[in-house]
Amino acid sequence: MKAGIVGANGYSGAELIRLLLNHPQIKLEMLIAHTNAGTDIQSIYPHFDGIVERTLEDFDADELAKRVDVVFFATPAGVSKHLLPDCLNHGLICIDLSGDFRLKNPQDYADWYQKEPADEALFGDAVYGLAEVNRRRIEGATFISNPGCYPTAALLGLAPVLKNDVIDMTSIIIDGKSGVSGSGKKEVLSNLFCEVNENVKAYKLGRHQHTPEIEQMIAQMSGEQTAITFTTHLIPMTRGLMCTTYANLKQGFSTRELLERYETFYEKSPFVRIRPLGSWPATKEVIGSNYCDIGLNVDGRTRRLTIVSVIDNIVKGAAGQAVQNLNIIKGWDEQTGLGFTPIYP
Amino acid sequence: MKAGIVGANGYSGAELIRLLLNHPQIKLEMLIAHTNAGTDIQSIYPHFDGIVERTLEDFDADELAKRVDVVFFATPAGVSKHLLPDCLNHGLICIDLSGDFRLKNPQDYADWYQKEPADEALFGDAVYGLAEVNRRRIEGATFISNPGCYPTAALLGLAPVLKNDVIDMTSIIIDGKSGVSGSGKKEVLSNLFCEVNENVKAYKLGRHQHTPEIEQMIAQMSGEQTAITFTTHLIPMTRGLMCTTYANLKQGFSTRELLERYETFYEKSPFVRIRPLGSWPATKEVIGSNYCDIGLNVDGRTRRLTIVSVIDNIVKGAAGQAVQNLNIIKGWDEQTGLGFTPIYP
Amino acid sequence: MKAGIVGANGYSGAELIRLLLNHPQIKLEMLIAHTNAGTDIQSIYPHFDGIVERTLEDFDADELAKRVDVVFFATPAGVSKHLLPDCLNHGLICIDLSGDFRLKNPQDYADWYQKEPADEALFGDAVYGLAEVNRRRIEGATFISNPGCYPTAALLGLAPVLKNDVIDMTSIIIDGKSGVSGSGKKEVLSNLFCEVNENVKAYKLGRHQHTPEIEQMIAQMSGEQTAITFTTHLIPMTRGLMCTTYANLKQGFSTRELLERYETFYEKSPFVRIRPLGSWPATKEVIGSNYCDIGLNVDGRTRRLTIVSVIDNIVKGAAGQAVQNLNIIKGWDEQTGLGFTPIYP
Amino acid sequence: MKAGIVGANGYSGAELIRLLLNHPQIKLEMLIAHTNAGTDIQSIYPHFDGIVERTLEDFDADELAKRVDVVFFATPAGVSKHLLPDCLNHGLICIDLSGDFRLKNPQDYADWYQKEPADEALFGDAVYGLAEVNRRRIEGATFISNPGCYPTAALLGLAPVLKNDVIDMTSIIIDGKSGVSGSGKKEVLSNLFCEVNENVKAYKLGRHQHTPEIEQMIAQMSGEQTAITFTTHLIPMTRGLMCTTYANLKQGFSTRELLERYETFYEKSPFVRIRPLGSWPATKEVIGSNYCDIGLNVDGRTRRLTIVSVIDNIVKGAAGQAVQNLNIIKGWDEQTGLGFTPIYP
Repeated sequence: MKAGIVGANGYSGAELIRLLLNHPQIKLEMLIAHTNAGTDIQSIYPHFDGIVERTLEDFDADELAKRVDVVFFATPAGVSKHLLPDCLNHGLICIDLSGDFRLKNPQDYADWYQKEPADEALFGDAVYGLAEVNRRRIEGATFISNPGCYPTAALLGLAPVLKNDVIDMTSIIIDGKSGVSGSGKKEVLSNLFCEVNENVKAYKLGRHQHTPEIEQMIAQMSGEQTAITFTTHLIPMTRGLMCTTYANLKQGFSTRELLERYETFYEKSPFVRIRPLGSWPATKEVIGSNYCDIGLNVDGRTRRLTIVSVIDNIVKGAAGQAVQNLNIIKGWDEQTGLGFTPIYP
Repeated sequence: MKAGIVGANGYSGAELIRLLLNHPQIKLEMLIAHTNAGTDIQSIYPHFDGIVERTLEDFDADELAKRVDVVFFATPAGVSKHLLPDCLNHGLICIDLSGDFRLKNPQDYADWYQKEPADEALFGDAVYGLAEVNRRRIEGATFISNPGCYPTAALLGLAPVLKNDVIDMTSIIIDGKSGVSGSGKKEVLSNLFCEVNENVKAYKLGRHQHTPEIEQMIAQMSGEQTAITFTTHLIPMTRGLMCTTYANLKQGFSTRELLERYETFYEKSPFVRIRPLGSWPATKEVIGSNYCDIGLNVDGRTRRLTIVSVIDNIVKGAAGQAVQNLNIIKGWDEQTGLGFTPIYP
Repeated sequence: MKAGIVGANGYSGAELIRLLLNHPQIKLEMLIAHTNAGTDIQSIYPHFDGIVERTLEDFDADELAKRVDVVFFATPAGVSKHLLPDCLNHGLICIDLSGDFRLKNPQDYADWYQKEPADEALFGDAVYGLAEVNRRRIEGATFISNPGCYPTAALLGLAPVLKNDVIDMTSIIIDGKSGVSGSGKKEVLSNLFCEVNENVKAYKLGRHQHTPEIEQMIAQMSGEQTAITFTTHLIPMTRGLMCTTYANLKQGFSTRELLERYETFYEKSPFVRIRPLGSWPATKEVIGSNYCDIGLNVDGRTRRLTIVSVIDNIVKGAAGQAVQNLNIIKGWDEQTGLGFTPIYP
Repeated sequence: MKAGIVGANGYSGAELIRLLLNHPQIKLEMLIAHTNAGTDIQSIYPHFDGIVERTLEDFDADELAKRVDVVFFATPAGVSKHLLPDCLNHGLICIDLSGDFRLKNPQDYADWYQKEPADEALFGDAVYGLAEVNRRRIEGATFISNPGCYPTAALLGLAPVLKNDVIDMTSIIIDGKSGVSGSGKKEVLSNLFCEVNENVKAYKLGRHQHTPEIEQMIAQMSGEQTAITFTTHLIPMTRGLMCTTYANLKQGFSTRELLERYETFYEKSPFVRIRPLGSWPATKEVIGSNYCDIGLNVDGRTRRLTIVSVIDNIVKGAAGQAVQNLNIIKGWDEQTGLGFTPIYP
């Protein structure tokens, strides 16, 4: 199967290249990057020297239709809404890593992204590619919207307790911490080494665009509309993302009981690992891999549950999850090409 | 006035040296370090070369009584409870930076520190040195227990809303993030560069020893006993500590109204700075200084308050606050010797 | 005395503010920043909140002449050559932190900076402000060109052995390592956290613009024209700069003999500290201070000298050295306002 | 083929596990760790959870002989000299990643390692496993001493110019920069985050134990005994190692001519990549992979060559090179199991 990547010069695009090179069913055929068209990928990313040497091309849906079967959009918000429809029309499998097609309600997109939403004909059509939750909907789909990095960690952390009256749905608080690669390869002040290093910064309080995405999926999974508090922090590291999620328990569950529930819930999900009682994951323990590791703690004094979930934001939070989705679409083993052991230390 | 530092070879001890060198009323007279007695401080810390050159001595209360007026204990938990009583008996002003005398209830110490509490005769006698709250009790005191780093940031963040039914007291969640210096100069696995760098780690969920200290002061300030959820995270940075604190509002306050309340509450506290609407502090903005910077956000959708408070854990969270307390004890201007501008970047 | 800072919104400009606030003889009067004129400095740098609150102004030589006595230019290369002459004409003391007036030969500037040199009338007129070497020329001067960060560390490391046939002048190799703040507050790819973190990068081999500056001063000090090899590396840290300098010894000196030579050479230089035999400085040991620390090693097997010299690139390598120069110009104690103890850790 | 790892709980041991899991010809059979025998590897390294779950065993040569074909020693200096001989006697292939068997002269070991050398019967018997240079000697060998991390980068950087009178052999200076993982998982002060972060430190000047190893191989390759200057620096990063190597050219070669010489020299070495004219490698560009990337610069002004060579110290500098050596021993494709694309960013 042949693949094209739009936005191949960004960090998620480069990671897609790394992962797809390792995929036995995929041949990388087109690397597309509007701003660097005509340049060789290895001159932008010398780490690809001798591994993948290919000239970046400009976007052309007709050309894509001729040469590839699947297109990954690793583009900033606001780009795929213009380019992806043509590819869908050409019958290509489209996997969008941006936020353009994640929300079901165009007004939410307009409000939280402060951009024009995609054409209504298409808006809401994408299958939300959170494989562990939506696996059946993904099978055979042709249009996938890949989850955001924060929603991936937050929702995988919450999914097993969203049903059966386990938690008070109005009490959910998600405290997110992310490495800087989550904000992409952008030459802006807030991404400068001197601004990030030796620093922790809270940002976009009350207005992070991943909020409605998380709430939408909580509603899908729980059947209840709820508003969450979601706070994001920039941490001095390149890769890695943690969500520390808090919720009040409706009943007096023990940590052990909930761990069992998580183990059962994720029994058939090879990329989710549950930590044993009294231990919680660190981001470094999943770096370079497609894992989401989860640890729990119930505080008996407050009857409150704390969930710690971690991912590599560029793998499970972007490129890895996209490949996982393709595997499911095609009926391949979900782990095909994704058997990376985390790199430690 | 002459000062001695017990534990001068640790990070808080070294910071006390830096600060006291800058203090016009203080002469550094004795540097005490059990494990390095006989060694010159500048051979352990070459950055003191030519600035302070003095031999570390062993602890001797009689000697201290002869040579100094005030003793700072910058020792690990479990040390000052043995050494400090003798100094008090000699009439010395004692400022303890460790956790040995912070709690009022010996059983809490036993439970949370997993150590024998100090002698009952003395336990609970120290004035808790959170200057912005306890200023009057500190004036003229001779025995101060300096607050922990997390409690300092958490309590300064919460203090203005602990009265008058502003928040639901059962809803308080404190998500703490700390640099590694907070755990001291200890040669343990969890402090190794390779374990901390490019990593975020949650630790001691539900059992961090600063929990009862925070709850005790919340009770003092609010008049209500309450249990909080307190989670701590280790961040890949040396200095800096942030508490992101969540609480449900009992009434529909706006961010602006609460900011005014904070401004008023801290009007006479030169080391607390309130950020304007829509901006939140980053730890780097207080590094090297005794400031605690605070920003707020009310999420109208959830009627929940988020408080972001930051300190330099070794300054306001330890050595700086100790000096501030001495200034208040002696009736000097609270800022004496503490006029450090944060170092940025 | 009143001071103005041109380029107050950059990192060196901000550091000048921090240092001058601490200077008993200086009143900060004008903060100038072309791109941010009209903005308050504390909205750009919240760490100044409550400490210095002042609106950034546009450059105006007449206005400066009315309001200040000394102007610091903390501007990128190519700016002060346009602005500074007017200030000089108005009789202001001018201290230029950029590279515009460091070289004596305009062609060198054109070749190495790839820019038009300043007007020939002025080019070469500035006194090179390496205080430890040029102290007498600086006294009473009105036009100082402040040394570059690399030249400061390299030249202080080399100065004591440049005379009396100690080293083979053709054998000098300087291997420099710098933190990222050395490249300023510039939103370029190479300054992004994700590009710098967990990385070491060699850059500008054989064409770093500090090369002719170092060679020019080696020639002044030794009386010999020589070409050096100078290689610079970007290190994942914010502040700090190290030069590891290699030179072949002409005679069989021991490390001890050379250490004595260094101690003597810098006897009256309060900001240079020589490390004892067998120990070498780390950059962290001078951070936040105006020190340059130096350690030596003679390898008897190769009869080669290795010199390790470190500075805080924004203090001794920029703002601190500029203040030191002003102190010397005015005949104040060289350390006035510069008594900062390094911040460790 | 079955493999055992002695020292599986260290960083190089853990990396060997990661690499061997990916090797189609190898089955991991025994993980040995004296200090953690009886513990599960995944409780020490949670990143192995669900990937490799195996109990660490104590060292037992008889047991090894029964169960494995090849033993990797990822042990600190001074350990394999005691354990490895027994394994050799049992006919096992032994690959030693420590320094115990690298030197040919026992006195050098005693002098530079300050330890007793291994038994003379065996000392000097190992084949030095620098594949790109010693490939033929490695084929079919049973006892390999894997090169040190610094020697790997330094020697691959120098090899192509060590013959034919290209450089002055007395002029070689190697300035090394290494991440902290190079010093292993050791709980010592110099490995603490707070000591390394925001810091660069030169260490062991004139007495680093890799010096005689480099000189020995320079002699083998060039036919000339020479003494080098070798300086090492600790950099605030976890993985990655760079050698910046300086040498005087005997003739007026251009950078381009030397680049061609390097390309030719490494034509059949898949893990060495030469950078084009005017570009030099950064350590991040090889992280997670077995590559050594090399860039050159000839400074016409000084007729001096600068070589920049980078590796991932735990892969090409340790575990990866060990696997590469096994591939060569067994006649498998040199890249078997080592096809990792570097992880960027």
